[in-house]
Amino acid sequence: MNLKSILLCALISISTFSETFSQNDSSSEDSIMLHRIYTEALENGKAYEDLRELSKNIGQRLSGSLGAEMAVLWGENKLNAYNFDKVYLQEVQVPHWKRGNRERAFYITKDKKIQQLNILALGGSIGTDGNIKAKLAMVNSLQALKDAKEDAYKGKIVFLAEAMNPSTSSAFTAYGTGFSLRSTAASEAAKKGAIGVIIRSLSLSENDFPNTGMMTYEEGVKKIPAAAISTNDATLLKKLIENGEQLTFAMEMDCQTLPDVISYNVIGEITGSKYPNKIITVGGHLDSWDVGEGAHDDGAGIVHSMEAVRLLKTLNYKPLHTLRVVFFMNEENGNRGGKTYAEKALAKGEEHIYAIESDAGGFTPRGFDFTQEKDIQFIKQHKALFQNYSIHEFSKGWGGVDIYPLAERFENIGLIGFLPDSQRYFDIHHNNNDVFENVNRRELHHGCAAIASLIYLLDKYN
Amino acid sequence: MNLKSILLCALISISTFSETFSQNDSSSEDSIMLHRIYTEALENGKAYEDLRELSKNIGQRLSGSLGAEMAVLWGENKLNAYNFDKVYLQEVQVPHWKRGNRERAFYITKDKKIQQLNILALGGSIGTDGNIKAKLAMVNSLQALKDAKEDAYKGKIVFLAEAMNPSTSSAFTAYGTGFSLRSTAASEAAKKGAIGVIIRSLSLSENDFPNTGMMTYEEGVKKIPAAAISTNDATLLKKLIENGEQLTFAMEMDCQTLPDVISYNVIGEITGSKYPNKIITVGGHLDSWDVGEGAHDDGAGIVHSMEAVRLLKTLNYKPLHTLRVVFFMNEENGNRGGKTYAEKALAKGEEHIYAIESDAGGFTPRGFDFTQEKDIQFIKQHKALFQNYSIHEFSKGWGGVDIYPLAERFENIGLIGFLPDSQRYFDIHHNNNDVFENVNRRELHHGCAAIASLIYLLDKYN
Repeated sequence: MNLKSILLCALISISTFSETFSQNDSSSEDSIMLHRIYTEALENGKAYEDLRELSKNIGQRLSGSLGAEMAVLWGENKLNAYNFDKVYLQEVQVPHWKRGNRERAFYITKDKKIQQLNILALGGSIGTDGNIKAKLAMVNSLQALKDAKEDAYKGKIVFLAEAMNPSTSSAFTAYGTGFSLRSTAASEAAKKGAIGVIIRSLSLSENDFPNTGMMTYEEGVKKIPAAAISTNDATLLKKLIENGEQLTFAMEMDCQTLPDVISYNVIGEITGSKYPNKIITVGGHLDSWDVGEGAHDDGAGIVHSMEAVRLLKTLNYKPLHTLRVVFFMNEENGNRGGKTYAEKALAKGEEHIYAIESDAGGFTPRGFDFTQEKDIQFIKQHKALFQNYSIHEFSKGWGGVDIYPLAERFENIGLIGFLPDSQRYFDIHHNNNDVFENVNRRELHHGCAAIASLIYLLDKYN
Repeated sequence: MNLKSILLCALISISTFSETFSQNDSSSEDSIMLHRIYTEALENGKAYEDLRELSKNIGQRLSGSLGAEMAVLWGENKLNAYNFDKVYLQEVQVPHWKRGNRERAFYITKDKKIQQLNILALGGSIGTDGNIKAKLAMVNSLQALKDAKEDAYKGKIVFLAEAMNPSTSSAFTAYGTGFSLRSTAASEAAKKGAIGVIIRSLSLSENDFPNTGMMTYEEGVKKIPAAAISTNDATLLKKLIENGEQLTFAMEMDCQTLPDVISYNVIGEITGSKYPNKIITVGGHLDSWDVGEGAHDDGAGIVHSMEAVRLLKTLNYKPLHTLRVVFFMNEENGNRGGKTYAEKALAKGEEHIYAIESDAGGFTPRGFDFTQEKDIQFIKQHKALFQNYSIHEFSKGWGGVDIYPLAERFENIGLIGFLPDSQRYFDIHHNNNDVFENVNRRELHHGCAAIASLIYLLDKYN
């Protein structure tokens, strides 16, 4: 795009800007505040460089790992460096699952050709206790696996070939239906006699990176090892098997679950000037999977939360309520941080009015979801403010994993989830592509400004 | 993000889907059609693989180059392969500016330390006719350059250090105001006695790739060579100069303007079943700059346009009006394709009712802009349809460079520009990052579906 076009662009931009300021007084004050928030975020935002530190200097930080311990220290240092009124750690007992250093697999054709492929143990899986080798039995869907006869896959390794549904407009919707596949495949296969299971990665792109993520064993069902293979490998295996190839699969994984360890939620507060005892929480999770760098999931949520409050602070906004930034530990494989935070809040008799979570990546913002209908109506009264920054989606939702335990304990709390664009999320989700280079500075800083704007409105009008 | 969260996601997805189908009859028919369009695009879309061919097998295709000639052949082949009713070429005489194979620069400190840096001649620039070497004079803004005394930079090379404004929410708005800097810097510097000019690249990210783009010489002003340096180098030079360093700059460029050559717009039509003489045009530009692969700019627009019509065709939709896909030649440095198309349309007495352009990248769709207020009102009547696919922005605009000449010749035509998200655009614009790897399949296919949906509604209700 080029040429005179551009002068027309400039005209449009002027009309957009004047629109921002053509409202009533209170709304005009809000317009000016949002404009200041966005200007500070886009010109002087710190989130991108903070995320570079978390991604590159610390990187992977699965609960119980050294990376997680260093991330706690990093978070405490950052909140102190930004002069939050109070900074403290909240003890959390976390599970300690550990990937081994042996994680390999091969398939073998009936002609005894061997081919290695990438596998990635699912979080929580047991290891293979030495090598396992068995006939590979493909099953096309989780439902077909459930419907199979008892002992249908006795002594075999099951390959669950079901793909995430590519046709839903929101990628999160596709994950919503695909998720149970990953979490239950092992127990469902074990019920049919299998000795191991591999699944097609939950990704909407075709690539060579397997995606990990949490799985759970059903009480009373034999535990078998579970791993993901890449979407490209899954497509290839499916084609081979459909063409009549009989495959043997061999795998070795020495992952294991160690005793729980002590870790921490990291908390920073700005004390409210009028209602110091009423709390608005904003957070993301500090732990990540042990692949990539946890840059989008959920490094982005960490820096979104910290930066949203820093922006308000830098602009000398004095919040009426206490703003509490929380870096939750252990969202990925246990949610002990979220549960502990809610339990302790209740035990201390705190009053929680809102909790906001960012755990859907650092992509360009689209909106927020809300547990309370009244909050949707409130934000829609202010939608003209957000439209100036291309934020349009205000829908019913559930907030997020970390903050959800608060809803079970505080009847009147409003939970809010930040909704960035979803299309690229499953290219990087729980895999080696989730690195800092795949986060865009402007997209990330737009997210910080959107969350700061929301906090400002919630604080001012409550 | 993880765990039970996901079951809640699934619930949301179901409610979104049912929303799609809870409208009146005609609207329900439209909901179903949009659902079919999106499903086909996301499941079986061809745009991404077509763009891979254009980007990887052809790549750079500046007007007059071999790449442009091959791109014309590719376009004709593709439209034939998709069985358009008519496929033909429209002759266009295009300028032929050619980057040389020598394009180098160094700066030299007062202590005679030398440092090489990347430069990229601006499109249309003259060469240096051998080497040039002169004192480097930094000017902080285009306005300051205009305000300088006559002969203020006599015999010097001017470094225009002005940066694109990072604080506008839309990146296109920032380009709107930054654009004149690139196009007029050379003549403004020449008026003040300069013998060459370098500008800070029009980019909102900090990187080492200079961005090219068109510049023009003002009639009657001495022509001097003009090049861009990267944002990182511009920041560095500015800092050195502000710290009192006196720099000499040496550069060599052997770019030149050759005689015009014959090239082509590539056109494919589906004949209208009811109004074959009323034409809806949809297009992008086939030429690109001679850096990167022109993947977003404007390979994305090419495959968006072709795929939008292919989707309707595959779904057996029989358009009432003639749908014409146009691959315009020479948008980047002359717009001869757009002008020729409009001139010939007028000369042939054609009736043009709408023209849609995609030339803002292959990113996630946000909406459309319209020249006619009545079309905004029309689309807003259907906004519930688009909301299901996260498309919310319907604003007053100008359509696009290629289709703009139509508005000068057809009074009642509605021009429409496709608006994808803008945040990443200037990371790749006119530089070596504009490669296929930086296009996301789902984002691209969402764009095709959005444009197909728009064409369907325009065709059906006009």
